[in-house]
Amino acid sequence: MATKPRTTDWTAQMRVLGQRARAAARVLAAMPGATRADALRSAAASIRATAGPILDANARDMVRAQTSGLAPALLDRLKLDAARLEATAAGVESVAALDDPVGILVDRRERPNGLVLDRVRVPIGVIGIIFESRPNVTADAGALCVMAGNAAILRGGSEAIETNRALHAAFVAGLGAAGVTPHAVQLIDDTDRAAVGAMLAADGHIDLVIPRGGKSLVARVQAEARVPVLAHLDGINHTYIDAAADPAMARAIALNAKMRRTGICGATETLLIDRGFAAPGPILAALADAGCELRGDAEACAIDPRVLSADDEDWDTEYLDAILAMRIVGGVDAAIAHIAAHGSHHTDAIVTADATVAERFLAQVDSAIVMWNASTQFADGGEFGLGAEIGIATGRLHARGPVALEGLTTYKWVVRGTGQVRP
Amino acid sequence: MATKPRTTDWTAQMRVLGQRARAAARVLAAMPGATRADALRSAAASIRATAGPILDANARDMVRAQTSGLAPALLDRLKLDAARLEATAAGVESVAALDDPVGILVDRRERPNGLVLDRVRVPIGVIGIIFESRPNVTADAGALCVMAGNAAILRGGSEAIETNRALHAAFVAGLGAAGVTPHAVQLIDDTDRAAVGAMLAADGHIDLVIPRGGKSLVARVQAEARVPVLAHLDGINHTYIDAAADPAMARAIALNAKMRRTGICGATETLLIDRGFAAPGPILAALADAGCELRGDAEACAIDPRVLSADDEDWDTEYLDAILAMRIVGGVDAAIAHIAAHGSHHTDAIVTADATVAERFLAQVDSAIVMWNASTQFADGGEFGLGAEIGIATGRLHARGPVALEGLTTYKWVVRGTGQVRP
Repeated sequence: MATKPRTTDWTAQMRVLGQRARAAARVLAAMPGATRADALRSAAASIRATAGPILDANARDMVRAQTSGLAPALLDRLKLDAARLEATAAGVESVAALDDPVGILVDRRERPNGLVLDRVRVPIGVIGIIFESRPNVTADAGALCVMAGNAAILRGGSEAIETNRALHAAFVAGLGAAGVTPHAVQLIDDTDRAAVGAMLAADGHIDLVIPRGGKSLVARVQAEARVPVLAHLDGINHTYIDAAADPAMARAIALNAKMRRTGICGATETLLIDRGFAAPGPILAALADAGCELRGDAEACAIDPRVLSADDEDWDTEYLDAILAMRIVGGVDAAIAHIAAHGSHHTDAIVTADATVAERFLAQVDSAIVMWNASTQFADGGEFGLGAEIGIATGRLHARGPVALEGLTTYKWVVRGTGQVRP
Repeated sequence: MATKPRTTDWTAQMRVLGQRARAAARVLAAMPGATRADALRSAAASIRATAGPILDANARDMVRAQTSGLAPALLDRLKLDAARLEATAAGVESVAALDDPVGILVDRRERPNGLVLDRVRVPIGVIGIIFESRPNVTADAGALCVMAGNAAILRGGSEAIETNRALHAAFVAGLGAAGVTPHAVQLIDDTDRAAVGAMLAADGHIDLVIPRGGKSLVARVQAEARVPVLAHLDGINHTYIDAAADPAMARAIALNAKMRRTGICGATETLLIDRGFAAPGPILAALADAGCELRGDAEACAIDPRVLSADDEDWDTEYLDAILAMRIVGGVDAAIAHIAAHGSHHTDAIVTADATVAERFLAQVDSAIVMWNASTQFADGGEFGLGAEIGIATGRLHARGPVALEGLTTYKWVVRGTGQVRP
């Protein structure tokens, strides 16, 4: 028999990383928030001071990626320059400026027997982040985890390996200069896909995995994970124009919700228009004039010759492009039913001047974010005032919608007594 | 080729159950809390009115179980009598009396652009409950799910199939009498183990699975589930007696924490005693006198001749019996380190008069529940004032410790604007 080449035992390796991370997490959790924030400011300074080597490493990744024929959009995501690196460092500082989520009292109750029960926010523990080509995630996600008192284990895309390595080295050197263990943020410095499998199986070592990347990455993570996953799936978002909508507001919101940026998960993908709405024509014209391809049902096609015929698949498609599905519906209940059948529980909006109709929509549409008279493009942690986000969760448990520092914590019950025993 | 016997296609069957449940969940979520409470009171009345057929069904289950040689402890769990059935009906009424968790405003923020963002509690959706021999879970779990606006899909143990069927029929007849669809609580009326596998794979149809039963059930659910699981694993709970503990309080708490009921998950399994504590002897004597087997390290053995020698396994064992592991440790940090190494993150307590030491323990012990000067046996949703519990979660996400109505909800973001578009 031939000898097999020696391969890394990723299960054992993950155990080592996990034990180091757990020890670091205990230290971070016990540390004052101001100390964690100081360590992040030190990490930002270290990134700035190491800009040369980081950009050199990125240049080498770019050469390799160009040689291997990486698509232009992915090359753009991979590329760092002085401005992007400065934005990364500034992003770390902005996380350090957020309120400390650890130790916040969620609620307190006193029992008739005198026991006082507090629920207090605490870090989750060890968080695994699996991401694709954007190297800035190394710093962004590391900063959010540390600020919430968690240790992070990062696994980046193979095309960014040199950049990630350099950025990570700078980040943890900065943590170290502030007296925080480098095990607070560990990078899996290997492109072996088996390492991802070991992360997903590291039950007991990793408390939560967050995939940041395209659908195939998220799907793999959800299919394989033996640890909890906080995942963002499709954003098949709807904007419904009610009969009672103000025509100018409806036009402005529809245009912004679809066309401001078509590639973000908060973009509207389907426009539902109430049959009773008086002025659908100008909305369709504005969208078509802005370069949006319109795919509608028969009634929508009759409004504007530029509307193409939609097929069934269009109602279930996240285009992430200048394409919009359109359907004429018979009132708010039909809109709610369409969204229940085709939506992805991300973000859905109604435009109407009728508060009763609006509240019905807000109550009955079962999405992480429901909006009244606003553009779905506001679905973003920064726009929500959360400071920064690690993702937008489309699952139902733990955290929904934009996930920021609070979503990276959990709680514990702290019970204070005076000698009570249970009868 | 031989024709295979026709078997149930559980994947297809679960799709049907899931679609019915989803439709029922939408109705429940939109229903006023008072209506859900009325429906539960009607279900309780129906259980009382159907006591005869339910007890007859239980008698048949008992005969079958006795014939098949079910262990006495399991027979006792299976058995219903008039008093137990009345307690079940009263339990449903007590859930109906709890505050409605749906619609509660978690927080509100107003953005500089005028958008008002509310986070509002909403039901999770469809909850799968997999349980073992106790038939009252049919009513308890069904009531908690419905009160929190969720639809439930129940799968009980095969030995209780006739009781579960009768109790479920009474429960949904009561819901129906109050105008609530019977699809709000569906029972998988089949003992095929493949049905459990289909539940655990019913991603998209079931939003959360809660196993209620022994370790092997929970382990199977955690290993197989493709849907999120809220699980209660071991309760390897510690009580630490600090040097500064009041001797009488320490003795009373240790005795209660271990011996009040040894079979519940909140029972203390390991007693840690500070080497500086002056009076360990009376505590050990009180425990031994109460019939508790003591297994200690060498120092503990030296205190009382009735202490047997513990081996390494004892520190990691949930006895659920009148057996206690004991270790003499050098202060609170050693106690915290022992709990970090051997605990199960369920409930751990310190007894001390020193507030600084207590707060150190409360902050650094990473368990769902940490207690100061109280018995670990208080780890219970009823004792916490939550009214009723569906279980005690030992995971880190979504809900920790006793899970009651709030843990059966999630939240959504409701954004109200006046025409805002994103710049």
